[in-house]
Amino acid sequence: MEPFRLHVYACQQEKPGNAPCCAARGSAAVLDALRKELAAQGLMGDVQVTTCGSIGMCERGPNMIVYPEGVWYSGVQVSDVPEIVREHFRNGRVVERLANRDAVALKKEIEENRAKAMAAMAAQAAAQRR
Amino acid sequence: MEPFRLHVYACQQEKPGNAPCCAARGSAAVLDALRKELAAQGLMGDVQVTTCGSIGMCERGPNMIVYPEGVWYSGVQVSDVPEIVREHFRNGRVVERLANRDAVALKKEIEENRAKAMAAMAAQAAAQRR
Repeated sequence: MEPFRLHVYACQQEKPGNAPCCAARGSAAVLDALRKELAAQGLMGDVQVTTCGSIGMCERGPNMIVYPEGVWYSGVQVSDVPEIVREHFRNGRVVERLANRDAVALKKEIEENRAKAMAAMAAQAAAQRR
Repeated sequence: MEPFRLHVYACQQEKPGNAPCCAARGSAAVLDALRKELAAQGLMGDVQVTTCGSIGMCERGPNMIVYPEGVWYSGVQVSDVPEIVREHFRNGRVVERLANRDAVALKKEIEENRAKAMAAMAAQAAAQRR
Protein backbone atom coordinates (compact mmCIF):
# COMPACT_ATOMS: atom_id res chain seq x y z
CA MET A 1 0.00 0.00 0.00
CA GLU A 2 3.00 2.34 0.17
CA PRO A 3 3.35 4.66 -2.82
CA PHE A 4 7.01 3.75 -3.33
CA ARG A 5 8.63 0.35 -3.81
CA LEU A 6 10.97 1.00 -0.90
CA HIS A 7 10.85 3.50 1.93
CA VAL A 8 14.06 4.30 3.80
CA TYR A 9 14.10 6.09 7.16
CA ALA A 10 17.51 7.58 7.94
CA CYS A 11 18.05 8.67 11.55
CA GLN A 12 19.40 12.21 11.88
CA GLN A 13 18.94 12.58 15.62
CA GLU A 14 21.11 15.18 17.34
CA LYS A 15 21.72 14.88 21.09
CA PRO A 16 23.18 17.44 23.46
CA GLY A 17 26.71 17.34 24.82
CA ASN A 18 28.76 14.24 24.15
CA ALA A 19 25.80 11.85 24.03
CA PRO A 20 26.21 9.40 21.16
CA CYS A 21 23.81 10.03 18.30
CA CYS A 22 23.52 9.45 14.58
CA ALA A 23 24.21 13.13 13.82
CA ALA A 24 27.53 13.06 15.72
CA ARG A 25 28.40 9.80 13.98
CA GLY A 26 28.04 11.16 10.45
CA SER A 27 24.39 10.65 9.49
CA ALA A 28 24.15 13.85 7.41
CA ALA A 29 26.96 12.76 5.11
CA VAL A 30 25.39 9.30 4.76
CA LEU A 31 22.01 10.83 3.89
CA ASP A 32 23.62 13.08 1.29
CA ALA A 33 25.49 10.11 -0.21
CA LEU A 34 22.29 8.07 -0.24
CA ARG A 35 20.33 10.70 -2.15
CA LYS A 36 23.14 11.17 -4.67
CA GLU A 37 23.55 7.41 -5.16
CA LEU A 38 19.81 6.93 -5.70
CA ALA A 39 19.90 9.64 -8.35
CA ALA A 40 23.03 8.11 -9.94
CA GLN A 41 21.43 4.65 -10.10
CA GLY A 42 18.11 6.06 -11.39
CA LEU A 43 16.10 4.97 -8.37
CA MET A 44 14.67 8.30 -7.17
CA GLY A 45 11.13 7.41 -8.25
CA ASP A 46 11.29 3.97 -6.63
CA VAL A 47 12.82 4.69 -3.27
CA GLN A 48 11.43 7.28 -0.84
CA VAL A 49 13.92 8.63 1.70
CA THR A 50 12.65 10.18 4.94
CA THR A 51 14.68 11.49 7.84
CA CYS A 52 13.76 10.28 11.30
CA GLY A 53 14.46 10.80 14.98
CA SER A 54 16.15 8.37 17.33
CA ILE A 55 15.31 4.69 17.00
CA GLY A 56 17.19 3.93 20.21
CA MET A 57 20.44 2.56 18.79
CA CYS A 58 22.45 5.75 19.14
CA GLU A 59 25.79 4.12 19.96
CA ARG A 60 25.79 2.12 16.73
CA GLY A 61 24.63 4.77 14.27
CA PRO A 62 24.23 5.97 11.67
CA ASN A 63 21.12 3.82 11.52
CA MET A 64 18.54 3.35 8.82
CA ILE A 65 15.45 1.19 8.45
CA VAL A 66 14.21 -0.05 5.09
CA TYR A 67 10.61 -1.05 4.31
CA PRO A 68 8.69 -3.10 3.36
CA GLU A 69 11.23 -5.61 4.73
CA GLY A 70 11.77 -3.76 8.01
CA VAL A 71 15.54 -4.23 7.80
CA TRP A 72 17.47 -2.30 10.46
CA TYR A 73 20.94 -1.25 9.29
CA SER A 74 23.48 0.08 11.79
CA GLY A 75 26.90 1.70 11.50
CA VAL A 76 26.27 2.71 7.91
CA GLN A 77 29.22 4.63 6.47
CA VAL A 78 29.31 6.76 3.32
CA SER A 79 31.44 4.03 1.76
CA ASP A 80 28.64 1.46 2.36
CA VAL A 81 25.99 3.45 0.49
CA PRO A 82 26.69 2.34 -3.09
CA GLU A 83 26.56 -1.32 -2.00
CA ILE A 84 23.27 -0.87 -0.11
CA VAL A 85 21.69 0.90 -3.08
CA ARG A 86 22.96 -1.59 -5.64
CA GLU A 87 22.57 -4.84 -3.69
CA HIS A 88 19.49 -4.16 -1.60
CA PHE A 89 17.55 -1.42 -3.34
CA ARG A 90 18.25 -2.57 -6.89
CA ASN A 91 18.83 -6.31 -6.58
CA GLY A 92 16.78 -7.12 -3.47
CA ARG A 93 19.68 -8.64 -1.51
CA VAL A 94 19.99 -7.33 2.06
CA VAL A 95 23.55 -6.29 3.01
CA GLU A 96 23.83 -8.77 5.85
CA ARG A 97 27.03 -7.45 7.43
CA LEU A 98 25.23 -4.20 8.35
CA ALA A 99 21.80 -5.67 9.17
CA ASN A 100 20.50 -6.47 12.65
CA ARG A 101 18.81 -9.80 12.10
CA ASP A 102 18.16 -10.74 15.74
CA ALA A 103 14.92 -8.94 16.63
CA VAL A 104 14.97 -10.13 20.25
CA ALA A 105 18.50 -8.81 20.84
CA LEU A 106 17.57 -5.57 19.07
CA LYS A 107 14.53 -5.00 21.27
CA LYS A 108 16.64 -5.67 24.40
CA GLU A 109 19.28 -3.20 23.26
CA ILE A 110 16.67 -0.50 22.53
CA GLU A 111 14.96 -0.99 25.88
CA GLU A 112 18.28 -0.90 27.77
CA ASN A 113 19.28 2.29 25.95
CA ARG A 114 15.90 3.82 26.76
CA ALA A 115 16.32 2.98 30.45
CA LYS A 116 19.82 4.52 30.43
CA ALA A 117 18.53 7.69 28.77
CA MET A 118 15.68 7.99 31.28
CA ALA A 119 18.12 7.51 34.20
CA ALA A 120 20.46 10.16 32.75
CA MET A 121 17.56 12.62 32.38
CA ALA A 122 16.40 11.91 35.94
CA ALA A 123 19.96 12.44 37.27
CA GLN A 124 20.21 15.71 35.37
CA ALA A 125 16.86 16.91 36.73
CA ALA A 126 17.93 15.97 40.27
CA ALA A 127 21.22 17.87 39.84
CA GLN A 128 19.31 20.95 38.70
CA ARG A 129 17.12 20.83 41.80
CA ARG A 130 20.15 20.84 44.13
CA MET B 1 12.32 -8.74 11.48
CA GLU B 2 11.38 -5.53 13.29
CA PRO B 3 11.86 -5.65 17.06
CA PHE B 4 8.36 -4.27 17.74
CA ARG B 5 5.01 -5.56 16.55
CA LEU B 6 4.17 -2.15 15.07
CA HIS B 7 6.35 0.81 14.19
CA VAL B 8 4.74 4.23 13.82
CA TYR B 9 6.47 7.17 12.15
CA ALA B 10 4.88 10.50 13.09
CA CYS B 11 5.86 13.48 10.93
CA GLN B 12 6.99 16.49 12.96
CA GLN B 13 8.37 18.55 10.08
CA GLU B 14 8.60 22.30 10.63
CA LYS B 15 8.76 24.58 7.59
CA PRO B 16 9.65 28.26 7.43
CA GLY B 17 7.13 31.07 7.06
CA ASN B 18 3.57 30.13 6.27
CA ALA B 19 4.40 26.93 4.39
CA PRO B 20 2.01 24.15 5.41
CA CYS B 21 3.67 21.48 7.54
CA CYS B 22 2.73 18.88 10.12
CA ALA B 23 4.23 20.97 12.94
CA ALA B 24 2.02 23.96 12.08
CA ARG B 25 -0.96 21.63 11.82
CA GLY B 26 -0.61 20.23 15.35
CA SER B 27 1.70 17.22 15.05
CA ALA B 28 3.35 17.75 18.47
CA ALA B 29 0.02 17.49 20.28
CA VAL B 30 -0.89 14.38 18.27
CA LEU B 31 2.46 12.76 19.12
CA ASP B 32 1.99 13.54 22.79
CA ALA B 33 -1.53 12.11 22.72
CA LEU B 34 -0.27 9.01 20.92
CA ARG B 35 2.40 8.29 23.51
CA LYS B 36 -0.04 8.81 26.38
CA GLU B 37 -2.69 6.61 24.76
CA LEU B 38 -0.19 3.80 24.11
CA ALA B 39 0.78 3.93 27.78
CA ALA B 40 -2.87 4.02 28.85
CA GLN B 41 -3.73 1.00 26.69
CA GLY B 42 -0.59 -0.90 27.82
CA LEU B 43 0.97 -1.01 24.35
CA MET B 44 4.31 0.72 24.96
CA GLY B 45 6.31 -2.50 24.58
CA ASP B 46 4.47 -3.48 21.39
CA VAL B 47 4.43 -0.25 19.42
CA GLN B 48 7.55 1.77 18.66
CA VAL B 49 6.98 5.46 17.90
CA THR B 50 9.57 7.42 15.93
CA THR B 51 9.37 11.02 14.77
CA CYS B 52 10.10 11.71 11.12
CA GLY B 53 10.66 14.49 8.64
CA SER B 54 8.39 15.42 5.75
CA ILE B 55 6.80 12.63 3.77
CA GLY B 56 5.56 15.11 1.18
CA MET B 57 1.93 15.45 2.24
CA CYS B 58 2.34 18.70 4.17
CA GLU B 59 -1.06 20.17 3.29
CA ARG B 60 -2.91 17.20 4.75
CA GLY B 61 -0.95 16.68 7.97
CA PRO B 62 -0.50 15.66 10.65
CA ASN B 63 0.60 12.49 8.88
CA MET B 64 1.77 9.17 10.24
CA ILE B 65 2.80 5.89 8.66
CA VAL B 66 2.31 2.55 10.39
CA TYR B 67 4.34 -0.61 9.67
CA PRO B 68 4.42 -3.46 8.88
CA GLU B 69 1.25 -2.62 6.93
CA GLY B 70 2.63 0.61 5.45
CA VAL B 71 -0.63 2.47 6.15
CA TRP B 72 -0.42 6.22 5.52
CA TYR B 73 -2.73 8.21 7.78
CA SER B 74 -3.39 11.90 7.08
CA GLY B 75 -5.14 14.69 8.94
CA VAL B 76 -4.82 12.89 12.26
CA GLN B 77 -6.26 14.92 15.11
CA VAL B 78 -5.75 14.44 18.83
CA SER B 79 -9.35 13.24 18.99
CA ASP B 80 -8.57 10.43 16.48
CA VAL B 81 -5.73 8.96 18.52
CA PRO B 82 -7.71 6.72 20.92
CA GLU B 83 -9.54 5.16 17.95
CA ILE B 84 -6.31 4.51 16.00
CA VAL B 85 -4.66 2.94 19.04
CA ARG B 86 -7.67 0.81 19.96
CA GLU B 87 -8.88 -0.19 16.49
CA HIS B 88 -5.64 -0.46 14.54
CA PHE B 89 -2.87 -1.01 17.07
CA ARG B 90 -4.85 -3.25 19.41
CA ASN B 91 -7.46 -4.89 17.16
CA GLY B 92 -5.68 -4.81 13.80
CA ARG B 93 -8.42 -2.86 11.99
CA VAL B 94 -7.14 0.08 9.94
CA VAL B 95 -9.09 3.32 10.53
CA GLU B 96 -10.17 3.66 6.92
CA ARG B 97 -11.56 7.21 7.09
CA LEU B 98 -8.02 8.52 7.78
CA ALA B 99 -6.05 6.11 5.58
CA ASN B 100 -4.78 6.84 2.07
CA ARG B 101 -5.57 3.60 0.27
CA ASP B 102 -4.84 4.72 -3.29
CA ALA B 103 -1.06 4.33 -3.67
CA VAL B 104 -1.03 5.72 -7.23
CA ALA B 105 -2.87 8.90 -6.21
CA LEU B 106 -0.62 9.21 -3.18
CA LYS B 107 2.55 8.99 -5.26
CA LYS B 108 1.19 11.59 -7.69
CA GLU B 109 0.36 13.95 -4.83
CA ILE B 110 3.82 13.56 -3.27
CA GLU B 111 5.58 14.15 -6.59
CA GLU B 112 3.47 17.22 -7.34
CA ASN B 113 4.19 18.62 -3.88
CA ARG B 114 7.90 17.94 -4.35
CA ALA B 115 7.87 19.79 -7.70
CA LYS B 116 6.06 22.74 -6.08
CA ALA B 117 8.58 22.85 -3.23
CA MET B 118 11.51 22.75 -5.67
CA ALA B 119 9.95 25.56 -7.75
CA ALA B 120 9.41 27.66 -4.61
CA MET B 121 13.02 27.14 -3.54
CA ALA B 122 14.26 28.05 -7.03
CA ALA B 123 12.11 31.21 -7.05
CA GLN B 124 13.44 32.18 -3.63
CA ALA B 125 17.04 31.64 -4.75
CA ALA B 126 16.41 33.73 -7.87
CA ALA B 127 14.87 36.53 -5.78
CA GLN B 128 17.95 36.55 -3.54
CA ARG B 129 20.26 36.90 -6.56
CA ARG B 130 18.41 39.99 -7.79
